Amino acid sequence: MAYKKLNGSLIISLESGDMIVESLEAICEKENIRAAWMNGIGLCRDPEIGFFDAGTGAYIFKRFDGDFEIAALTGNVALFEGRPFIHAHVVLGGRDMTTYSGHLREAVVSAACEIVITPLPGTLERVAVPGSPLKKLRL
Amino acid sequence: MAYKKLNGSLIISLESGDMIVESLEAICEKENIRAAWMNGIGLCRDPEIGFFDAGTGAYIFKRFDGDFEIAALTGNVALFEGRPFIHAHVVLGGRDMTTYSGHLREAVVSAACEIVITPLPGTLERVAVPGSPLKKLRL
Amino acid sequence: MAYKKLNGSLIISLESGDMIVESLEAICEKENIRAAWMNGIGLCRDPEIGFFDAGTGAYIFKRFDGDFEIAALTGNVALFEGRPFIHAHVVLGGRDMTTYSGHLREAVVSAACEIVITPLPGTLERVAVPGSPLKKLRL
Repeated sequence: MAYKKLNGSLIISLESGDMIVESLEAICEKENIRAAWMNGIGLCRDPEIGFFDAGTGAYIFKRFDGDFEIAALTGNVALFEGRPFIHAHVVLGGRDMTTYSGHLREAVVSAACEIVITPLPGTLERVAVPGSPLKKLRL
Repeated sequence: MAYKKLNGSLIISLESGDMIVESLEAICEKENIRAAWMNGIGLCRDPEIGFFDAGTGAYIFKRFDGDFEIAALTGNVALFEGRPFIHAHVVLGGRDMTTYSGHLREAVVSAACEIVITPLPGTLERVAVPGSPLKKLRL
Repeated sequence: MAYKKLNGSLIISLESGDMIVESLEAICEKENIRAAWMNGIGLCRDPEIGFFDAGTGAYIFKRFDGDFEIAALTGNVALFEGRPFIHAHVVLGGRDMTTYSGHLREAVVSAACEIVITPLPGTLERVAVPGSPLKKLRL
């Protein structure tokens, strides 16, 4: 992975084999990012995405085998237990352009993935919701 | 709903039961936002989305029952008849991650919905297109 | 097409018949944009989108006939061979809201398409990857 700062914004180019969420959290930790918004596009393989079942209060996760275009990655960065935490959703287009989408658990970059992280001044924090996998923004 | 201003950008956390478009318009009115871009993710229920049929000049609206991940909410804020007007499109992922998308008429937040509104200096205005439901940006 | 600058950001309103990628590259060239991120929504017709097959190292392109809502357009601007080059992905919702997505080759605007281009200070550059259609960001 490589990145460049342009007036505070991070332009990130992830490379084949990079784990997306893990890489972004590592970059945010290194750059001490405490609040940010992000947008990205790219290609990934074997993405695992989730749907939050509000009825049971649990995520349903599904892993899709193979390569998918990341048609949109949208998310934010906030501190959770003192460390940068990524909350991102993705839209995935397959070989026949059929599309799946949901909460991004993790995906491996295939070919390339380009992301902009725009830090916001100040700090955003998340707190765990008791009895739930959700981590809520505390505003 | 709750929100926080970080250097002018509004970080918004909508809560279960909040109407998305109505809530965003209320926040923009309160904060006197006259031009902005927005991005968001979340979970919603019973979203109603539209497809503009350029042939008939009318929207086809469809309501989807149940919960959907908002994999991407993209839109802007401009003044229409003197008040902030939201124009947003959404990408919705269902329980099996099958995806639907279109113009957001309205949706109810389920669990959580996180949106950033980035105000732009100056004013954007929309004007009604005669004989059409469209409201065009006047640049 | 029309556009307006608000504190450096370009708010662009493309009109029926405008080619999206071609129009955005022309605007970036005129405005001397050397690095930027972009977001957009709109309606288009006959979009041609691609899936990059990492196995063969080539894009698979597919053209979809008719009108589609652009539920999300996400991308960036960098210089390639000295000129502004758009790299964008799109999420397309059809008349029944069924959704397709991938790398945007080109699409014609139908009714309207609203895009924000946020320039970043400095320059982003792409270089051709030998033996591949990919142009990689050089950071």
